This record gives sequence, structure tokens and C-alpha cells, in this order.
Amino acid sequence: MSDKRTELQDLGEFGLIEKLTNRFKTQVPSTLKGVGDDAAVIEINEEEVMLVSTDSLLEGIHFDLMYMPLKHLGYKAVMVNLSDIYAMNGKAEQITVSIAVSNRFPVEALEELYEGIQKACELYQIDLVGGDTTSSRAGLIIQVTALGRAKKKEVVYRSGAKENDLLVVSGDLGGAYMGLQLLEREKEVFKTNPEIQPDLDGYDYLLERQLKPEARKDVLAFLKELEVKPTSMIDISDGLASEIMHLCKASELNCTVYDEKVPIDGKTASTAIEFEIDPITTALNGGEDYELLFTVDQSDYEKVASNPHMTVIGHMTAKGSGIYLCDKAGSLVELKAQGWKHFE
Amino acid sequence: MSDKRTELQDLGEFGLIEKLTNRFKTQVPSTLKGVGDDAAVIEINEEEVMLVSTDSLLEGIHFDLMYMPLKHLGYKAVMVNLSDIYAMNGKAEQITVSIAVSNRFPVEALEELYEGIQKACELYQIDLVGGDTTSSRAGLIIQVTALGRAKKKEVVYRSGAKENDLLVVSGDLGGAYMGLQLLEREKEVFKTNPEIQPDLDGYDYLLERQLKPEARKDVLAFLKELEVKPTSMIDISDGLASEIMHLCKASELNCTVYDEKVPIDGKTASTAIEFEIDPITTALNGGEDYELLFTVDQSDYEKVASNPHMTVIGHMTAKGSGIYLCDKAGSLVELKAQGWKHFE
Repeated sequence: MSDKRTELQDLGEFGLIEKLTNRFKTQVPSTLKGVGDDAAVIEINEEEVMLVSTDSLLEGIHFDLMYMPLKHLGYKAVMVNLSDIYAMNGKAEQITVSIAVSNRFPVEALEELYEGIQKACELYQIDLVGGDTTSSRAGLIIQVTALGRAKKKEVVYRSGAKENDLLVVSGDLGGAYMGLQLLEREKEVFKTNPEIQPDLDGYDYLLERQLKPEARKDVLAFLKELEVKPTSMIDISDGLASEIMHLCKASELNCTVYDEKVPIDGKTASTAIEFEIDPITTALNGGEDYELLFTVDQSDYEKVASNPHMTVIGHMTAKGSGIYLCDKAGSLVELKAQGWKHFE
Repeated sequence: MSDKRTELQDLGEFGLIEKLTNRFKTQVPSTLKGVGDDAAVIEINEEEVMLVSTDSLLEGIHFDLMYMPLKHLGYKAVMVNLSDIYAMNGKAEQITVSIAVSNRFPVEALEELYEGIQKACELYQIDLVGGDTTSSRAGLIIQVTALGRAKKKEVVYRSGAKENDLLVVSGDLGGAYMGLQLLEREKEVFKTNPEIQPDLDGYDYLLERQLKPEARKDVLAFLKELEVKPTSMIDISDGLASEIMHLCKASELNCTVYDEKVPIDGKTASTAIEFEIDPITTALNGGEDYELLFTVDQSDYEKVASNPHMTVIGHMTAKGSGIYLCDKAGSLVELKAQGWKHFE
């Protein structure tokens, strides 16, 4: 090792991945796309590809067992990965699940975790095909790899957006983040006084967004029904702003997003205000919504606008135009990605 | 959760996996083999399958950075997974690598780790196609998923052994375990007196077996050259005894292994004696040799015996005959798997 010491937080997660992997060259003919999209793309026959994506959830970093039921955790770990396959416009078919766990967990706890995984497999029609278990010195770690399949010509990459394409988002944003804020607040109350029962009545939607998210397999079905093929797509795991940046970078474009178009549920907005957070911030910089962000050709506007699960929030602009958030008054603010900063 | 509490160590790793996964049903037509072999087998076209295997290495459980150079660790993490693909008689083509790492590691340390991964990719002609990085509260975790490909009719499962088949092992066994013992001894010496330089001269082979193992891609090539297709196969990661048990269980057979046939390098044997360990124990219950254990038809005896990288160590017997180790004097001792017991 040289004497130079660069701290991980100086690079951030995406800078780090780029630094570590940019020297790797692709040498296997079947590798169509390696690092740099939601999933890797591997040719499996003349017409089809396999999609591979992997994600880890670590206790204390991604979840807190104080309020995350193990069954939901298992379910969520699967959703996080399926979401990446769907973001490539693929059909998820198999997963492997590796867990590292300390002795403090009894077998019954892991059975609960696997009940959630099983539920996800049943509902999304995928098979658990492998994995490993090992002991951990610090908490629970769940690592899922998802495998999917797609027709080669139907795969949607982050890089396919064209100038003037419409930027579309599924569902609504910021709910998972506000769910997390609520759970954190109640945890603090509980730590101060364990006698006080958590006050989470009426917040079901936000809690569900945080504790039991769904991957948007249904959105792919809607798009197929509408005969719309997105030109580019990414899943929203780190917050809208961060994902917009990825899409723009991969497609070598910029974009303008309209503040008031960003879909935010009423409960998310009112809870944000209760927490003195600007609702748009929960959508832009909150994470874990697992919605899809995609671009479509202008000619698909009517089709997309007709579907209640999709919202046009902006459009792609030429590189160099800047990536802007436009508010009601028409003033432009440059978008900055916050995303998750694990290393800080 | 019910009130019952079963400790993880009561089940052991394999019992735990079975308990957690036995309720899962295969529902996707392309899943040919799920949990229960070295890799999952997924149909990708009429003639071919994709093989998928995943394994994690955790600091403090699987490696100690006090003596494991990061570059070697990266290399080894890849080998561990390729070995599983080769154990299915497949060609490894892609890997994903996920790391969890705490702030105490500078970027330069991770670059070393990835240098080892890159070296492995180059030498074994595989592509790094994805992964993620996240922060960890406790040490370094490396999780690799390997993807391979094979002709459907060439895949070798654990379950294919027939009665009277010969049991064959590649390379020699116990070296990685003795390498670990040496490193642990020098670590203790160093902890007592940091002035004393480690005394590892002349132990290169054992250290290499532990720190920089190779997956036996070459053995598959030898078998192809010899026109021998194993009837069953497994890689030796947990020690010969444990792998024999897996093979017997999957093939619904028993076997007899001849003590003096088990290949043990001279340096492994002499070092074992120095440590007051019976050399056969290092082969049976040591781990991490990453050799291949397979069965072949009796008619292939001459071919296999002609290759210096393979040793016939026994033969398969009918179920109910017992799984025995036969010593020079001809007395039989029942084999018991020790393997790794992470949860103790």
C-alpha cells in the first residue's frame, strides 16, 4: 500500500465504485453490460438476456430491528433487488439469499425472516435458489442477488434517454422517508420512557412505505398494456435527485423537473410539515421509495398521462443546459443529489 | 414469534439452511436446481444452463487482516466462488462483488482488495459485472456471486454417484488448514512480543494454500482431455469428511475411504506432526482446500490414475453400508463430519 490515505467519505459510494471498478475490462463475450446500470446484462441466447443485480441490507445501517419486524425485513430485502430487475424492464425469476447472523438470534427469528422472503417469492413468482448462512460478529446482514430475464430488444438501460423525452415517475415519493422519521421519533420517545406506547395511528401508509415496500412489477405491466417502451429507466432507491443525476449522466443529457408535478402523497406532505421538512425534500433526497423513474418519447404523453400510477414530472434537455428544479413561480434551482451517504 | 427458542448452534449451518428453505417451492420453469448443490442451475436455452453460486467472507470469521493481505483476500474471495461453479462442471463467466466496509479503511486499502479481484478475473477469464458497496459497523465483508455456464448434459450434480463408483480427489488436502495454524501461531508470538519477526521460512506452500488458493479450473480441463465425465462432484471447502457426507446424502449412497490414499503433501504432514495433529485430520476436518471431490465409473480407473492431479481415495457403497475410513491395518472407523461450525 502506498502512504497516501484517501478517506472513503471523500469519494462517496458512487465515486468509490467507479474508482474501484474502472480498471476492469470486459473480456467475456456474453457480458453485454457490466457495472453501471441497475443490473448486469448477460446474453443467454440469440433473443434473450439474463439480468443480475445484488444488494445488501445491514443492521444498524439500513435497518433497525427495534422497529423493523423480521418478516417485513425479509420481504423488503427481496423487493429492493426485484426493483433493480424491473428497472431494466425484465422479469425477475430467481434470487439467492445470504445471511450473516450473530448467536443472539434464535432459529425462530430467522424463520420469521424467511417467512417474509417466502411471501415475496410467492407474490412475485420467483424462486429462492441458493445462498449461504454464516455467523456475524455484529448484527444481521442480508444479501440478496436477483436474477431476471428479458428479451434483448426489450431491455431498458439508464443510457437510452433522448433530448425532449418526458421524465416520468411511478407512484408517489417521500413516503418511505417520512415513515422512517416517524419510527425514529417513536424510538426516541420509547428510549426516554418505555411506558409510553408508540403513537403511530393514522400513519399506516407511511409505515408501510418504509417497512413493506413493493417493487413495481405492476408498472411494467401497465407500460406493456399501454404499448409504451421507456427509452431509459432506473429505480428510485436513493431519492429522486440522485436517480435523476444517474439517468442524466448515463444518457449524457440534462433535464428540467417541475416541482409541483412531483407526486407526493397528502399524508407524506402533512407529516413532512409536522416535522418541519419541505415536502419536496422528502421526494428529492429521501430514499427507499422503490418507484421507477423513466423517460418516454413525447408522442407517448397521452398514454402515460392516462395511467394513474405514472406522473410526468419533467423533460430531458441537452447536455450543458443544467439539471434544474423549476418551482411554481418559474424560478430554477440547480438539483443536487444527496442520496445516501453511508460513509459519513 | 412463538415463545420457543432454538439456538443456532443446535442446528449447525447445514441444518439451519435446510430448516429455513425446505418450505420454499420451486415455481419458475427455468429453475432446474435450487438450494442444495454447489450452485443453482437455471435453464437459459435448449442446450445450456446458467450456474449461480454465492459466498461471503467476513472479517473475524473467515479471515484475519493481521495476516491476510488485502490483495490476496480479493483473489481468494473470487476463488471460493469459482470453485463452486467448477464443481458443477461449468465454465465461470461473471461475478458480482459486494463489500461492506467501515470508515477505518482508506480508499487505497480497497484498491488493493480490488487488485486481487482483478487479477483473479484476468487469470480465470471472468468479468466483474456488478455489486455494491456499503458501510459496515464491524469490519470488512466481501460477498461474491459467481455466474457460470454449462451444457445441460454436462452439468455434474452431487446426486449422480452410483454404487461402486470410484471416489476421487484433486490435488492434496490439509495444506490450507496447516497454513492457518502457522499464521495463528505467529500471530500469538507477535502479540506477546512485537519485536520478534514471524518465522514462516520454508512454509511457502502451506501459506499459499491458505492465503492464495486456486480454484481447480485446470482439473475440469484434465477430465475433458481424459474424456472422463464425473458422475457426481462437490468442491472441498469445509474439509473432506463433510463433503463426503454431502455427496453420500445427495446420491443416497455410502462409501469407504482408504486412509493411506488420501493425498497429503509432505510439508502438510510434517507440519501437522510438529503441531501434534494427526495429518489425516487436517485433510478430513481442515477446510479451505478448494479441491474437487468427485466420483467416476470404475471403467475410468486407468484414465484417472494416469493423471498426477487426481487420486482415487475410495469407492461408493450401498446405502446402509456405512461411511467408513479404512486404515492400513484394515480396521474401519466411521467418518464424522466436523466442517466449520460458525455458530459455536
